[in-house]
Amino acid sequence: MTTTATVRADLVTSAQQFYQLGWMLGTAGNLSAKNPDGSFWITASGKAKGRLSEQDFVRLAPHGQVLESPLPENRPSAETSIHQAIYDLFPEAQACYHVHSVEANLVTQFCEGDSLTLPPLEMIKGLGIWEENPQVSLPVFENYLDVPKIAQAIRDRFSVSCPEVPALLIRHHGVTVWGTSPTEAHNRVEIAEYLFRYIVALG
Amino acid sequence: MTTTATVRADLVTSAQQFYQLGWMLGTAGNLSAKNPDGSFWITASGKAKGRLSEQDFVRLAPHGQVLESPLPENRPSAETSIHQAIYDLFPEAQACYHVHSVEANLVTQFCEGDSLTLPPLEMIKGLGIWEENPQVSLPVFENYLDVPKIAQAIRDRFSVSCPEVPALLIRHHGVTVWGTSPTEAHNRVEIAEYLFRYIVALG
Amino acid sequence: MTTTATVRADLVTSAQQFYQLGWMLGTAGNLSAKNPDGSFWITASGKAKGRLSEQDFVRLAPHGQVLESPLPENRPSAETSIHQAIYDLFPEAQACYHVHSVEANLVTQFCEGDSLTLPPLEMIKGLGIWEENPQVSLPVFENYLDVPKIAQAIRDRFSVSCPEVPALLIRHHGVTVWGTSPTEAHNRVEIAEYLFRYIVALG
Amino acid sequence: MTTTATVRADLVTSAQQFYQLGWMLGTAGNLSAKNPDGSFWITASGKAKGRLSEQDFVRLAPHGQVLESPLPENRPSAETSIHQAIYDLFPEAQACYHVHSVEANLVTQFCEGDSLTLPPLEMIKGLGIWEENPQVSLPVFENYLDVPKIAQAIRDRFSVSCPEVPALLIRHHGVTVWGTSPTEAHNRVEIAEYLFRYIVALG
Repeated sequence: MTTTATVRADLVTSAQQFYQLGWMLGTAGNLSAKNPDGSFWITASGKAKGRLSEQDFVRLAPHGQVLESPLPENRPSAETSIHQAIYDLFPEAQACYHVHSVEANLVTQFCEGDSLTLPPLEMIKGLGIWEENPQVSLPVFENYLDVPKIAQAIRDRFSVSCPEVPALLIRHHGVTVWGTSPTEAHNRVEIAEYLFRYIVALG
Repeated sequence: MTTTATVRADLVTSAQQFYQLGWMLGTAGNLSAKNPDGSFWITASGKAKGRLSEQDFVRLAPHGQVLESPLPENRPSAETSIHQAIYDLFPEAQACYHVHSVEANLVTQFCEGDSLTLPPLEMIKGLGIWEENPQVSLPVFENYLDVPKIAQAIRDRFSVSCPEVPALLIRHHGVTVWGTSPTEAHNRVEIAEYLFRYIVALG
Repeated sequence: MTTTATVRADLVTSAQQFYQLGWMLGTAGNLSAKNPDGSFWITASGKAKGRLSEQDFVRLAPHGQVLESPLPENRPSAETSIHQAIYDLFPEAQACYHVHSVEANLVTQFCEGDSLTLPPLEMIKGLGIWEENPQVSLPVFENYLDVPKIAQAIRDRFSVSCPEVPALLIRHHGVTVWGTSPTEAHNRVEIAEYLFRYIVALG
Repeated sequence: MTTTATVRADLVTSAQQFYQLGWMLGTAGNLSAKNPDGSFWITASGKAKGRLSEQDFVRLAPHGQVLESPLPENRPSAETSIHQAIYDLFPEAQACYHVHSVEANLVTQFCEGDSLTLPPLEMIKGLGIWEENPQVSLPVFENYLDVPKIAQAIRDRFSVSCPEVPALLIRHHGVTVWGTSPTEAHNRVEIAEYLFRYIVALG
């Protein structure tokens, strides 16, 4: 099926690039993108992100049922519940990327309560903010060993107040972004990490 | 037309290299270079700089009229007015490059008023300064959502006093350099960023 | 012998990648991996890690006898005694990697006595720690010009108390990790270095 | 002449690698290596180090006479006098490399008088120091616009006291190393820069 293969090709390319940047070391992180029928491909659990192939995915129905698995041993990413929460909360989201950079961990020391103030840089336009000297915050969540507990915290908070940017941070863990296409999600990962590098260096 | 294709090939190569260095993430930044007839090619708005092709440009007359567009949807970079200001002010300029590095944003904390003192490093020779222990400043401009307002500030300031180096910084945004060829503009971007890394690390 | 060639191919690939990251500059560092018969291949002394070939190894019996040497001049790495100590102490270890990063040297300023507290990051799962907010320490050893003295210190300490993570640090020198496969050892090097970058940047 | 072509191939490879590391941006830096007949090839002045070819050199007699120039416009590097000083002072030197990193400039803030104490890291073995906790200094020279004045200062100081390591630093400028082969000189550049990164990060 050409369309869903294209989706996976985008995810493979992004994983390799993020690996080379040190954001998906070993098996860290997970990427997903929707198909035209509403199902989504997500990286299978335990796959090395630096040498992902199009076989290393699982296709899931919106509510989590496994629809297709190119290799019999593939199981959905341990963090699938977070991707589902994002797709449920933001119907425009077509791709959801989660990576683990050093800087995303370092910025949590600059958080105030459960959010992180983003710097008013030109680059923030890439997160959809077109204002002069924008004052914008990134939502921050606690990290739990039990991932569905993180997903539930995201659903609880975002069903009350919509985040200002299409991104969230999990403390000691990493950033999750979403976009209307794999390309937009990829760009937004790069922009979030750019802002984190700035925050960390500014100190 | 061979000559103008060569110009675009240089811009494509530079964009890809700057993308890999994290200076043109997503669609950030814009590059232009003049043709023998006085027109100039500039990156079209909204193009991903990491995978630019020779189709992703617009050719403009000195005063901004679109002369050629390889793809019908191409529109000139939102920051075309800055490139025009540079070409008007500095007739020797044949290329003008603008990139968005993290360090270019960090250095603005070391600005005094509307300029940044550059360190007296050997590398500054690449900006055309051949002095022992040179004392040179880089002009700094405010960032506005309305780009022509930035371009006007550049025209106003530089028509009164010529900058000491072929470069300027826009606060929270990035550096713009110019040179007598695409190669010289490329080298000057690298040298400006080298100086910024030094300033930031020196603290 | 196909199997042992595969082992060396993995080591060559890792050495090249670590060289490019600045962790195996010049001839620095050494990598080994076990064969099915209990012998192990280790990088020969004095080989440039950025352009290692499958000829640049020596195959040793568990107690150190040279069994095979693709080039007559190859001598086992000067740090072979450390690899032997690891294989003796941890029978599950199939690969042992030692690299020299700048950050591994910088973190020793954060050591308390003979151990380094690791930060409670999600990435620590890659070292086999599955806990919420884990409190884990990395053992640190003194550096001696006489390498067997380091190996003996490792045997003495680990025969009394097993380390919490499959890794150790030699002060002013670098990290050594082990795993149940070359892939796992490679991932663990990356994770150790990730944690070191975090510790250094946090300050 | 095969031998001298090989020499230039090594220099081209090193220049490209140093360019990619940001140590030979634009036309910065210069590399030379001796031929069996005592003459040496040196990079020609003003050549872009990221895309050097084997044509971009000049072959000089020990005292500086031009013996061979693949392109008629080639002129010897502006810093040839420093290379000549090194070859005169250290007859074992077969290659001399000079690069401009940001870190080499940053470390001069840690100099005491005209030397820089190097940290006692394992990696220092690559500069020929085989001691436990070595206490070694790197000589530091002032930068002058008039390069022969730097070369003379090197001759004056080193004819009185031999440096402890095969390297020297020019303030605000960069490091120069030498070795008994192009490979050794290349490794020593990497090791010097490794030590500089450590010194800068340690603060």
